[in-house]
Amino acid sequence: FLLFFTHLFIYFALGSRYVSKTATKTVSEFEYDAPSMKTAVPGPKSQELLRQLGEIQNVGAIHFFCNYEESRGNYLVDVDGNRMLDVYTQISSIPIGYNHPALIKVMTNPNNVSAFVNRPALGILPPENFPEKLFESLLSIAPSGMNRVQTMACGSCSNENAFKSMFIWYRNKERGYASPSEQEVGTCMINQSPGCPDLSILSFMGAFHGRTMGCLATTHSKAIHKLDIPSFDWPIAPFPKLQYPLEEFVRENAQEEARCLEEVEDLIVKWRQKRKPVAGIVIEPIQAEGGDNHASPDFFIKLRNIARKHGCAFHVDEVQTGGGTTGKFWAHEHWGLDDPADIVSFSKKLLTGGYYHRDELQPDKVRAVTASSRQSIMPPTPYRIFNTWMGDPSKNLFLSEVLNVIRRENLLEEVTRSGKALLQGLYSLQTQYPHILSRARGQGTFCAIDACSDATRDSIMLKARNKGLFMGSCGEKTIRFRPALVFKEYHVHQLLNILNDILAEHK
Amino acid sequence: FLLFFTHLFIYFALGSRYVSKTATKTVSEFEYDAPSMKTAVPGPKSQELLRQLGEIQNVGAIHFFCNYEESRGNYLVDVDGNRMLDVYTQISSIPIGYNHPALIKVMTNPNNVSAFVNRPALGILPPENFPEKLFESLLSIAPSGMNRVQTMACGSCSNENAFKSMFIWYRNKERGYASPSEQEVGTCMINQSPGCPDLSILSFMGAFHGRTMGCLATTHSKAIHKLDIPSFDWPIAPFPKLQYPLEEFVRENAQEEARCLEEVEDLIVKWRQKRKPVAGIVIEPIQAEGGDNHASPDFFIKLRNIARKHGCAFHVDEVQTGGGTTGKFWAHEHWGLDDPADIVSFSKKLLTGGYYHRDELQPDKVRAVTASSRQSIMPPTPYRIFNTWMGDPSKNLFLSEVLNVIRRENLLEEVTRSGKALLQGLYSLQTQYPHILSRARGQGTFCAIDACSDATRDSIMLKARNKGLFMGSCGEKTIRFRPALVFKEYHVHQLLNILNDILAEHK
Repeated sequence: FLLFFTHLFIYFALGSRYVSKTATKTVSEFEYDAPSMKTAVPGPKSQELLRQLGEIQNVGAIHFFCNYEESRGNYLVDVDGNRMLDVYTQISSIPIGYNHPALIKVMTNPNNVSAFVNRPALGILPPENFPEKLFESLLSIAPSGMNRVQTMACGSCSNENAFKSMFIWYRNKERGYASPSEQEVGTCMINQSPGCPDLSILSFMGAFHGRTMGCLATTHSKAIHKLDIPSFDWPIAPFPKLQYPLEEFVRENAQEEARCLEEVEDLIVKWRQKRKPVAGIVIEPIQAEGGDNHASPDFFIKLRNIARKHGCAFHVDEVQTGGGTTGKFWAHEHWGLDDPADIVSFSKKLLTGGYYHRDELQPDKVRAVTASSRQSIMPPTPYRIFNTWMGDPSKNLFLSEVLNVIRRENLLEEVTRSGKALLQGLYSLQTQYPHILSRARGQGTFCAIDACSDATRDSIMLKARNKGLFMGSCGEKTIRFRPALVFKEYHVHQLLNILNDILAEHK
Repeated sequence: FLLFFTHLFIYFALGSRYVSKTATKTVSEFEYDAPSMKTAVPGPKSQELLRQLGEIQNVGAIHFFCNYEESRGNYLVDVDGNRMLDVYTQISSIPIGYNHPALIKVMTNPNNVSAFVNRPALGILPPENFPEKLFESLLSIAPSGMNRVQTMACGSCSNENAFKSMFIWYRNKERGYASPSEQEVGTCMINQSPGCPDLSILSFMGAFHGRTMGCLATTHSKAIHKLDIPSFDWPIAPFPKLQYPLEEFVRENAQEEARCLEEVEDLIVKWRQKRKPVAGIVIEPIQAEGGDNHASPDFFIKLRNIARKHGCAFHVDEVQTGGGTTGKFWAHEHWGLDDPADIVSFSKKLLTGGYYHRDELQPDKVRAVTASSRQSIMPPTPYRIFNTWMGDPSKNLFLSEVLNVIRRENLLEEVTRSGKALLQGLYSLQTQYPHILSRARGQGTFCAIDACSDATRDSIMLKARNKGLFMGSCGEKTIRFRPALVFKEYHVHQLLNILNDILAEHK
């Protein structure tokens, strides 16, 4: 490990390049072997399509138009024939690369046609194979302590419904699992308490949990997401701002984490006094959109204990971190929690949205208690967490196959290996270019590095794109790496070579 | 028309049955010709699957498990081999029946494989054919005055983002399209005003607009949706409660609508005084979940005028009414509005969620004004309405083909014809069984009838299910009919015969 690091460092010091000896072994047969650029990006065809789409939509966020038919594995091809190494993967939502042969087989299997053509209302009329597909997909990778799962169509709906489950659970506890009062049933219809109670969710500064109005009240990464949208008066705790390199700031970082945890407890008490008690705490294992902010396992374990101590549910949002990119299937598995979380939500690489939850978080818990009496004003029903589609079984089919590929190809081990190479490479780059880069950090291939300014970051990213490396940004001046799980050391070397070329030219 | 009505009436009076002479002509070749029941529903296989799924999910809302492979057209087949005439169609979300051959062709066309296997982040990296597919699908059926469309993954996300567009539009107007102040940018990050302003959306009692927390604050159909979930203090107006038959209560109904409109204006003024001004009004053309509540075109035209007068956006939620089921593509086209709505949202039968909006509702409107100056604190960006997937292009492929089928087979005319037969049949039934049924109403095949109690309604529905007719409920004691657009007069007759049998036996 250390030897490898030194080795890389020498290479850079001499201005040399990575030469991967394992290229032929690690590149899947269906993939390209390198980027290949024909035009600046966006090229003329993309520009023409931007003009067309601009007539009906805001196109300001579009990088370029893609030829998905020609894209393969880690390489995204655009409509002008440019082939880029993609380490952003549709905002971290492509699990095993483009056009993986195993997924094409799912599509072309005649037995699966009906699942695509007839989208059911899963909550009332599921298909015959729905339990089986859930068991072989989502249940087979359930985080520890989680024996129930609810699918949803996207990440925001997953978090919205997870929040609702926590509110319902909290109120059920408060009323001793008895039926709601007539007053509660009446007032909820007109948005008033006690039926719509003043409960809150505690979130963290820098967090991103989605953009629908419940989620948005817990999102605090960029003003542009929140400006002009009404919100809830919910408590917001500071997320630790760690100093890097971690080994040099052990004491300072421990103090910073302790300060944040103390603030969490203060806020819980304060909001209880304000009569807006905290029903749940929501947190990302790594704040992604907010700038790839990490905290130690110790921080999260203590946070979980605080949640338990104060009777708040503990919700881990794995929408971006889940799916294997940190080297474990769920990033929070790195913490070594004794006691599992109450809710774990997912989407993106899982292809379907949804959330796991502990048995206690079932919204119909009141049922068992009231079943014996017939006095219930509002009979307990299963429709409390519900919508038309509740997910999409065709996505479960793909997910089953993605999991087969992950297991067959040992992709979690691959991610761990590639991730080490990537992080070591980033360490080397920041040592080589300390005036430009700092704070390299990551877990698995879920890596990031900061530029000295947002302008420098943006300039590096544009230059990289024109050289065939497509990356994402986050926070104020961070580059985030979100490759697919089929990203190998060979690709790491391509990435580092392109970055090195750009940085060497950077004035 | 009158003759037909009399004809039907005589048939029923004599205890006779509908015999459709056009059966062979109207039933598509790929469809079955009638229901066929093997067991009571749910049958033994469904019960075993319920037990399995119950270990990981709440299954209380599940009717039965389906064999979608064997389902065809208007007939839904369950895992026990029961074949039912389906007039609920997955909560009104199947546009042209099960396994339509045209949709199977889309699936099996090799050119389309990539659209299913590689789900893009549409807001940043759309596929090459995205503008073309939007033009030939959603834009080709755009409501009058609507030249922009944004896709979303589901109905709730569509309404959430429509609300956000209205809030942004309202605040842009208030600040004269200038850049936001430093204070706004700062306060929005912590959920406080003025950055997160106290704006509101006016909705109607009985409305259903979805279950995420923004939508849920405008949903007022059933307590079970809202209980225990924090909400916003937003104004709720009464929706007209019309008396039936309409021709006997012309004056009373006009007065009722006038009363509701007056209340709308009062609420707008009141909420302005409370400093929670109404940014937008949201309404369904027919309240569906709330009990199939109708109002006259005059009511909606006046409501639109009130919105304009008070500077509120006017949002028509066509999630359930859109897609042709009322005989027009959009139910609000029946009103004959001079001035279009500001926003029209959709999902379900459109297969993708989303909303159309007028040019003024673009969230980046501030851009044009600030582009000349570089003083902007927060540079205007396209990321205000955004999420990872922004819809799913594979659904756009299906929608294009659905629209081709609708045009080729003149399905809107068919719906108008079948809808008339259905409504006349329901009129006959309520004349025949006035102690059980009342208030038959509808537009196209979007029909409903009330039972004398919820228990009677539920009993009729269960008996019908066991005789091969699968219907939906809504409101307190209403049966709602939501057949697919391929529902023909022949199917109407099957439906009426089964209902008549049940009602004749009803004690």
